[in-house]
Amino acid sequence: MSQNISLTPNPLTREAFAPYGNVIEKPGARHFPMNGGKLERYYDLADIRVGAESEGRPVMSIASCCEASKLPLQIRFLERHPHGSQAIYPLFKETMIVVVAPPGERILAEQIQAFYSNGHQGINFHVGVWHLPIIALEDGQEFMLVDRGGPNPNCDEFHFENKQAVRLLPIGDKQTAPST
Amino acid sequence: MSQNISLTPNPLTREAFAPYGNVIEKPGARHFPMNGGKLERYYDLADIRVGAESEGRPVMSIASCCEASKLPLQIRFLERHPHGSQAIYPLFKETMIVVVAPPGERILAEQIQAFYSNGHQGINFHVGVWHLPIIALEDGQEFMLVDRGGPNPNCDEFHFENKQAVRLLPIGDKQTAPST
Repeated sequence: MSQNISLTPNPLTREAFAPYGNVIEKPGARHFPMNGGKLERYYDLADIRVGAESEGRPVMSIASCCEASKLPLQIRFLERHPHGSQAIYPLFKETMIVVVAPPGERILAEQIQAFYSNGHQGINFHVGVWHLPIIALEDGQEFMLVDRGGPNPNCDEFHFENKQAVRLLPIGDKQTAPST
Repeated sequence: MSQNISLTPNPLTREAFAPYGNVIEKPGARHFPMNGGKLERYYDLADIRVGAESEGRPVMSIASCCEASKLPLQIRFLERHPHGSQAIYPLFKETMIVVVAPPGERILAEQIQAFYSNGHQGINFHVGVWHLPIIALEDGQEFMLVDRGGPNPNCDEFHFENKQAVRLLPIGDKQTAPST
């Protein structure tokens, strides 16, 4: 069966994103004073897993965008990290587009979901959740990453067949292509 | 012996900070393309230790400043985390003041060092390094923290005697108090 699915990003919320991972944000987080009350600490915002049993360790990186993505775009593949979570937080308060699908050996195109963040939200993909790599919408944007480093391969890709075209539309674009 | 030491923050550099931890910044870091060359990844910027052997795990938090610190200030104590590193990265490109002293059971006032960051630098304290808690200079500033969560106490404090007064001066203030 040939499919033509168009996908419009929805607002990123903890509830909607819960099957895929954490939303890293202050609202709704447990918080308490630190440093004698000079700062408020919003605590434990991401369930970070690095697979210590497979010699994994937490790795912090900064990703800097040198070629912004343009929407609409065709989703041709998703990736997953079988041995670790992956946290991504925007350092320039920028909106991110996040594309995900549930864990499993195959991905059905209609299972793919897209979200957009409000600029003060990061995300943490749970282990094994399918996702698109970072979609940055402007050159020069930067993201803090915390994910797994270690000796074993930790990235699988699932490529869609050509006839399974999934089109990611701009935020707010309600256009839907007819299924054929 | 009574001491009156004044301390002026020096610029934060990898070299100067190496005995105390990592400077989290792009310049000088190993980097390579990710996402088909759309982003450049500056990799493995902090030696994160969370003490898995003591049931530690990585915890991500956001610290939001509700009461800015004013310089000069008196350094009355330093703290250390015996079971984990602590990474702090500014989310609003703000200058941080970082105050440290070498690991050990006691701190000599003259061992204390102060640094200021350029707004695009974070730091990661190595396990056991004495330091002041976050010194934020403006209300509303935010910092990403990655440190250790777990079942055991992970914060010691070392309090200076009253006669050991260490005064932290503003950036650029070259005033030095006479030793008596």
